[in-house]
Amino acid sequence: MPENRYVHGYSSRESERLADQAETLTSLLHNDTRFPAGSRVLEVGCGTGAQTIILARNSPGALITSVDISNDSLQRAEKMVRQEGITNVTFQQGDIFHLPVVLGSFDHIFVCFVLEHLAEPGLALLHLYPFLKDGGTITVIEGDHGSTFFHPENEDASLAVHCLVKLQQQTGGNALIGRQLYPLVRGAGYRNVHVSPRMVYIDASRPELVEGFTKLTFTAMVEGVGQEVLKQGMMNADSWARGIAALYRTAEPDGVFCYTFFKATARK
Amino acid sequence: MPENRYVHGYSSRESERLADQAETLTSLLHNDTRFPAGSRVLEVGCGTGAQTIILARNSPGALITSVDISNDSLQRAEKMVRQEGITNVTFQQGDIFHLPVVLGSFDHIFVCFVLEHLAEPGLALLHLYPFLKDGGTITVIEGDHGSTFFHPENEDASLAVHCLVKLQQQTGGNALIGRQLYPLVRGAGYRNVHVSPRMVYIDASRPELVEGFTKLTFTAMVEGVGQEVLKQGMMNADSWARGIAALYRTAEPDGVFCYTFFKATARK
Repeated sequence: MPENRYVHGYSSRESERLADQAETLTSLLHNDTRFPAGSRVLEVGCGTGAQTIILARNSPGALITSVDISNDSLQRAEKMVRQEGITNVTFQQGDIFHLPVVLGSFDHIFVCFVLEHLAEPGLALLHLYPFLKDGGTITVIEGDHGSTFFHPENEDASLAVHCLVKLQQQTGGNALIGRQLYPLVRGAGYRNVHVSPRMVYIDASRPELVEGFTKLTFTAMVEGVGQEVLKQGMMNADSWARGIAALYRTAEPDGVFCYTFFKATARK
Repeated sequence: MPENRYVHGYSSRESERLADQAETLTSLLHNDTRFPAGSRVLEVGCGTGAQTIILARNSPGALITSVDISNDSLQRAEKMVRQEGITNVTFQQGDIFHLPVVLGSFDHIFVCFVLEHLAEPGLALLHLYPFLKDGGTITVIEGDHGSTFFHPENEDASLAVHCLVKLQQQTGGNALIGRQLYPLVRGAGYRNVHVSPRMVYIDASRPELVEGFTKLTFTAMVEGVGQEVLKQGMMNADSWARGIAALYRTAEPDGVFCYTFFKATARK
């Protein structure tokens, strides 16, 4: 999920939040990603390893190379993976545009919650292309903050969500990238591009998602940029407080919350 | 789909549009609605019969009673149903609050694109309850214009879509009702309420939906309220024209369009 900076995972609270979120969304986002035993998988931008663990568990026979720009994140990821007893992941430090791996050596590439942070996501996809073997596949997962809607409606809450979009823009990222995966992946020359939306639909009959997503993931993420929003004067303090309260209000028994992730798969 | 009036189907162009739309969306919205042979089904607000045909085809053994407030719509619906050789539907004229049918006589009630037009949708659901046999089910399908998003983003296009929402409000309806189905159905006393979102996700790999939904259904529907929007001064003519052009722009090869319907099922 988008944050107002390129690199995730510097605080332990953030790390916990990402782990909670990953748990809640695992089945929705990842259940149809299984890589065969012996296949070589490159995970680009693994961060603190929230997705790495899921990947490795779902494809226990695959040989996964997980790369991130941040050594701090890599250390956390490696620690968590070791604690889980996972042995099929190798970590390497590197930027998406300067990957420490061999061209044409991967059967699969996996990119999750990374493109949203990049000023040139299409160029990144183009850059990844030659690292695939012929016929290899790429999987890309991104959220889209503009897909957010809820009941009861509330203008302050919508403004607060839009602040996230603007903050992401300020850092050169794009919090509305989910909807663009088809043209982005297609435009980078991949074929057989298939995009499927994955809506997190939450009403009172789904209490784990009310807790795990509406409150602990999404609203917590919005709350997390409050200081920056107020500092920049993007909203005043009252409006912001009302917006946050209104987001929590959607977690009440008569509330509803919707957010859509997009998953693209394609072939070299 | 919402329109700026209570009763659909007065023009033949409108009737064609609804038929096109029903065809495109049939599988997404209706494939999991099958009523057993011999079961008695009440369709409330059948309009010109776009959904009636689908219902009757998918449940050929069910005995369907389709009710609408408009005699004109009923005549069109009856004509279409007869042309299709469908024999398991009976039409009756009546208002949702004054139904010409017997209490406790139905195994299933089906309500599609009706609640959006009502000032008191919860009351309508409450009113339908006693027409079900004990253990009978209700199925409710509604769209939600606030779920619309697309690429490329365009402010005029968003304003144009919002005009539909405001016009629906003026007539006492609610174009954002889809997201509210869970609390509405639950609040009317039904049990086992289950709501599932049905997103129409459209990119260039799905040309039938680009034509059938983005252009012929959604954008045509927005275009259809243009005169009223301009008359009321909700947008100026230039902004409106740019908005409509931007909606068509989402149907280009690099465009994407998303709209979500909601389907609720529940039991008496």
